[in-house]
Amino acid sequence: MGKLLIVGTVAFDAIETPFGKTDKILGGAGTFIGLAASQFDVDAAIVSVVGNDFPDSYIKLLKDHDIETAAIEVVKDGKTFFWSGRYHNDLNSRDTLETQLNVLADFQPKVPDAYKDAEVVMLGNLHPDVQLQVLDQMSKKPRLAILDTMNFWMDNTPEQLDEVIARVDVITINDEEARQLSGEYSLVRAAEKIHQMGPAYVVIKKGEHGALLFHKGEIFFAPALPLKEIFDPTGAGDTFAGGFAGHLAATGNYSFENMKNAVIHGSNLASFCVEKFGTKRIEFLERDQVNERLRQFKALTQFDITLA
Amino acid sequence: MGKLLIVGTVAFDAIETPFGKTDKILGGAGTFIGLAASQFDVDAAIVSVVGNDFPDSYIKLLKDHDIETAAIEVVKDGKTFFWSGRYHNDLNSRDTLETQLNVLADFQPKVPDAYKDAEVVMLGNLHPDVQLQVLDQMSKKPRLAILDTMNFWMDNTPEQLDEVIARVDVITINDEEARQLSGEYSLVRAAEKIHQMGPAYVVIKKGEHGALLFHKGEIFFAPALPLKEIFDPTGAGDTFAGGFAGHLAATGNYSFENMKNAVIHGSNLASFCVEKFGTKRIEFLERDQVNERLRQFKALTQFDITLA
Repeated sequence: MGKLLIVGTVAFDAIETPFGKTDKILGGAGTFIGLAASQFDVDAAIVSVVGNDFPDSYIKLLKDHDIETAAIEVVKDGKTFFWSGRYHNDLNSRDTLETQLNVLADFQPKVPDAYKDAEVVMLGNLHPDVQLQVLDQMSKKPRLAILDTMNFWMDNTPEQLDEVIARVDVITINDEEARQLSGEYSLVRAAEKIHQMGPAYVVIKKGEHGALLFHKGEIFFAPALPLKEIFDPTGAGDTFAGGFAGHLAATGNYSFENMKNAVIHGSNLASFCVEKFGTKRIEFLERDQVNERLRQFKALTQFDITLA
Repeated sequence: MGKLLIVGTVAFDAIETPFGKTDKILGGAGTFIGLAASQFDVDAAIVSVVGNDFPDSYIKLLKDHDIETAAIEVVKDGKTFFWSGRYHNDLNSRDTLETQLNVLADFQPKVPDAYKDAEVVMLGNLHPDVQLQVLDQMSKKPRLAILDTMNFWMDNTPEQLDEVIARVDVITINDEEARQLSGEYSLVRAAEKIHQMGPAYVVIKKGEHGALLFHKGEIFFAPALPLKEIFDPTGAGDTFAGGFAGHLAATGNYSFENMKNAVIHGSNLASFCVEKFGTKRIEFLERDQVNERLRQFKALTQFDITLA
C-alpha cells in the first residue's frame, strides 16, 4: 500500500448539461482524484483549502473513502472555490459561466509530515506555483510525480508551468492543450516535444476518443468505453488521473507495462464518472461493477492476431 | 482462398491538402478496396465502369495486384467519373470542388458468372440501385454482404438505401452518418437502431479516432495508428473496408472474433493509405511492413489486467 499525495481543489461546482442542472454540489480536481484513487489499496491524502461554507458532510464523505483530509485547510470567514459551467449539446465543449477563486487565491499548500515521503505525488490542475510548493516540501524525491494542468496556465503562467513540467515524470493534458504546449498538430510529434520538456511519460486525454500514453517512442492507447448515455463529463479527466495514480501507488510498479494498466484503470473509472452529475456515480462504486467494466474494456480492445 | 466481389468506382481524383495538390490521379472506392484486399489471399474482382480516357496503365496496375478487371466496363466515347476535393487544415473535413458523374450516370453493373457465387460481396459507396443490382445478380446468397455508403444517399435515395441496408450483413459508415441514419447521438444507440434495419454487424468509422464494430450488444474498437504525419486521407475508409473484406474472404471465418481481426487489418492498411497521395502508398506494400505495423497495433492496444 503506497502513499499517494494529492494536491487539488476541493470545491463547489454548479453544472448545466442538456439533461439538467445542479445547484452547488461537491466538485474540484482533488475531490475527483481522491475518490477515484480510493478504489485502490492506497494511503491517500489531499492537500487543499476550503472556506467555512464547506459542509462537514463533504469532508466526511472523503474520510469515509479512507482519504486523509487533515491537510484540507479550512479558512475561517473564507468562501470555498466555486466553478459554474454549461455544456453544449454534444457534451464535448463547455462555457465557464462563473469562477470564484475565493480561498484559492491565497492558498499556501502544507504537505503533512506523514506524506512528505509519498511514493506518488499527483499534482491536480492548479496554479503552477502551488504545484511547485508541494514538490519543494517533499522530504525525498517521489518515485512518480504526475502533473495535470490546462491551457489557462499555458496562457497565463507559462514560465512557472515549464518549471513544474521539467520536474515531473508524467504529464496528463488534453489533445488541444498538447498541441498548444508543443506547437505541433500531430499528437505523436507533440508528445516528442513534451518529452523534451521533462516528463518521460506523456498522457494525452481525448475525452470520448480515449487516451494515449507516450514513452520513449512507444505508444499505448485506451479507448473511452462506448456508453449509451453520457450525462455529465465534469471531473472525468480528474477521475482518470486519480485511477491512474491510484493504481500505480497501490502496485508500486512504475514500469511502462504497468502504466498501460493504469491508463485502463483510469479510463474505466472515468466511464462511471460521466454517468451522473459530479461525484454522484463514483461515490458509490462496487468492486464487482468496476471489474465487470474492466472485462468490457478487455472485450473492447483485445484481439488475437498471431504474427511470426 | 475465397472469392471477393467488389463493386465500386474506378475513377479519377484531384486532391488538395495543406501539403500539396495533385492533377487527375487514380482513385475511386473500388480501386482502394481492391488494392487493400489484394494484400490477402483472395480471388477478387471489381465490377465498375470507366471511360475511354482511363489509362491502360491503371487497369494494368490492378491486374498486377491479381485483381480480376474483366468486369470493369470501358464505355467508348465516355468519360471516367471524376472527383475533386480540398482538405481543411486539420484534414478531418473537406470540401468537394467538383463531381463529374460521366459514365457513372448510366452504370449498369454486370457481375461476371465466375463471381456470382462469391463468398463475400463488398458494395462500395455508389447509388443504392447499383448495389441492389449486384445483389440481385448473385446466384447464391453470399456468406457476407458488406455495404459502404454515405450521407449523400441518405439525403437523396433513402428508400433504396434502406432496401440495401436490409439485405446486408455488415454496414460501414462514419460516425456522423451513423447519427444521421439512426437519429441517435450516442453511437451505441445508433448501432442498436441500425441493427434493427438489417445488418447484424455495424462498423462505425471515426477517422483518426478509430473504428467501432458492434454485434448483438458486443463492441470492439480499433484505434487509428497514431502517425507523425497524415498526408492525404482520401481512400482511407475504402482501404479500411478492403482490408476488412479481404481478411474475411481469405480466412472464410465470419465469426465475431475473426471480424475483430478484420477491423484491425483494415485499420492497419488505412494507416498506410494516408501517408501518400491517393493509392501511391498502398500500391507498394511489403508484407514485412504490414506485419511490422500489426505489431505496433498490438503494442498500442494490448494490456495485461487479470481478473478473477
